[in-house]
Amino acid sequence: MQQSHPRTALQLRSLVKRGGELEVSLTQVPVPAPAANEVLVRVEASPINPSDLGLLFAGADMTQASQRGSKEQPMVTARVPDAVLKSMAARFDVSMPIGNEGAGVVVEAGSSAAAQALLGKTVAALGGAMYSQYRNVPLEQCLVLPAGASPADGASSFVNPLTALGMVATMRSEGHTALVHTAAASNLGQMLNRICLKDGIALVNIVRNRSQADLLRSIGAVHVCDSSSPSFVQDLIDVLTISGATLAFDAIGGGKLASQILMCMEAALLKKTTQYSRYGSPVHKQVYVYGALGPGPIELNRSYGMAWAVGGWLVTPFLQKLGPAGTQRLKDRVAAELKTTFASSYAGEVSLVEALQLESIAVYSKAATGKKYLINPNKAV
Amino acid sequence: MQQSHPRTALQLRSLVKRGGELEVSLTQVPVPAPAANEVLVRVEASPINPSDLGLLFAGADMTQASQRGSKEQPMVTARVPDAVLKSMAARFDVSMPIGNEGAGVVVEAGSSAAAQALLGKTVAALGGAMYSQYRNVPLEQCLVLPAGASPADGASSFVNPLTALGMVATMRSEGHTALVHTAAASNLGQMLNRICLKDGIALVNIVRNRSQADLLRSIGAVHVCDSSSPSFVQDLIDVLTISGATLAFDAIGGGKLASQILMCMEAALLKKTTQYSRYGSPVHKQVYVYGALGPGPIELNRSYGMAWAVGGWLVTPFLQKLGPAGTQRLKDRVAAELKTTFASSYAGEVSLVEALQLESIAVYSKAATGKKYLINPNKAV
Repeated sequence: MQQSHPRTALQLRSLVKRGGELEVSLTQVPVPAPAANEVLVRVEASPINPSDLGLLFAGADMTQASQRGSKEQPMVTARVPDAVLKSMAARFDVSMPIGNEGAGVVVEAGSSAAAQALLGKTVAALGGAMYSQYRNVPLEQCLVLPAGASPADGASSFVNPLTALGMVATMRSEGHTALVHTAAASNLGQMLNRICLKDGIALVNIVRNRSQADLLRSIGAVHVCDSSSPSFVQDLIDVLTISGATLAFDAIGGGKLASQILMCMEAALLKKTTQYSRYGSPVHKQVYVYGALGPGPIELNRSYGMAWAVGGWLVTPFLQKLGPAGTQRLKDRVAAELKTTFASSYAGEVSLVEALQLESIAVYSKAATGKKYLINPNKAV
Repeated sequence: MQQSHPRTALQLRSLVKRGGELEVSLTQVPVPAPAANEVLVRVEASPINPSDLGLLFAGADMTQASQRGSKEQPMVTARVPDAVLKSMAARFDVSMPIGNEGAGVVVEAGSSAAAQALLGKTVAALGGAMYSQYRNVPLEQCLVLPAGASPADGASSFVNPLTALGMVATMRSEGHTALVHTAAASNLGQMLNRICLKDGIALVNIVRNRSQADLLRSIGAVHVCDSSSPSFVQDLIDVLTISGATLAFDAIGGGKLASQILMCMEAALLKKTTQYSRYGSPVHKQVYVYGALGPGPIELNRSYGMAWAVGGWLVTPFLQKLGPAGTQRLKDRVAAELKTTFASSYAGEVSLVEALQLESIAVYSKAATGKKYLINPNKAV
């Protein structure tokens, strides 16, 4: 078989030392031939998701980072705060590859017919270690992009689309009929909004300022509540009364927002009842925290009876519960609606070397709404 | 049919006025003949549970209460704090009877054979409004006490026993194998300890001081952690490692204890793993808050990955999920082990009139460990 790729390729790595020093660097790794049911992908677009940033920078304050090494092989170092260091014992002194997902072109395929069928195709992959120039990926972690879709179009085919679809599927499987979403102007939030509009699901979008509210309304969002508005609590009760939402997905976590959402859900439910119960409404109210944009503690004041829960939520265990057939149905929908429902937008693209420049880090590590970046490991430096 | 009871009888009532005044009083209510599938119970023992206190005093500060009315018909008044008043709109100006459960003698029975079979028997009842001299109760809310058991023996046959058995049943149905319990020296905690010892379930008892720890050890508790000890966190991690408990029932709620329990569960789980995941251990960690001994906000610091949940738990919805057959099996066990596993102890007994004396209220409203009181509505004043 003709070898169409170099024997080694660049890969981005993150290492936390026992003493608390973070080292982010590039390393040359071997590029083996793909196994029978694998394809070798030349990665051309991989998003920098909040979950990638967490692994990449390990909670270090990157405004205090420093850079050394050569221009082609830069290394960035920073201090991991003691408060989070102890939770990282299992990764001490392990050089970890980064990048949950990405997309690129299949340049070599394993011996199986299914693998061979992908040769030359543009695919998205949930392979891990996608901040690499070349990556062998098992077929079941690939999604063939529709004709005409570029790697950038398909770079975010998994994490955000499956998370958004997973939220809707969770809503259905747990008996709710409408949804609340916080940090709702994010890429993910806009995607969820498109899904809910298309599927006729009432979605309550909570945002943190007026311009985010305007953005969401401009793409058709029906229920938008701005938590910086003095009428926020009343606004939220009103739209929860209309929508009947008793399930929220919260990207923020820290602070009182989860508690406020439960309180407003309870107020909306109690409007429809006349019977007093000191245990509150018997209708279950659920907040799933799936992100940590607010890193402080969650404060729950329990002013919403006894039928409530707050808990962590991640898409991967949800998909495991859903099973392979159910997951495949979600993936098929992503492929079919890649350039509409599941379109992502990016503020820019950086190469692997650029990803290790302090001035780039200052921009892409902000995780601000509308400011998501792509890494293109095959972009010329 | 011969009428063996007076036409009217005393009943304790609690009323919250729209303006925030609480009125606790005695009223004469009619005593009708029981319906076909009811029995009329002369109530002789009804416990003052924390849930009864909540309804009775509506969160008012009873140290500031005042008393008026006659010796035979006293009335106690107090102010409901504004902070909790708004959650009580549905009970404004409604005179509510109190008393979840109790026991007494069946003095008259409905026409059905099943009802007639209970005539003269001592029964426990989850009837509500049990702070009444006489109470008509549907058969399905009754439990016939074993021969020789007094009303005081059976007064607490439902709330604590079914709550404790419900915790164990929840543990099994949600796939956990051991339990954590807070405020573990309570009547309920001692009962749960006896159940777990009998059934071979590892139970981690968390108490708030040394004397409670000693009390629990004296009745055979194996794992006891004192939250006032400087080594509490390490002690808790150690017993969670041994027991493998990933489910806790928390009577306290307010503060950081729920978060500490989750953190210690996570630490115990991570000891058994070598693979780093920034999402923490994939094993689900659950805290159910079933009480509010600590009325402040719950603070969750999320230092335990993503597989966690905190939520409210109540026995009644749990039994509804369990269904009538499953619930009957639990009740049968309570009757069979009433004087052993499910024995309760009381600090004293008050009449209805005594229950409305400020000096009695000062004692029984404390809800202190080992200081639970019974109301005997048929006790001579």
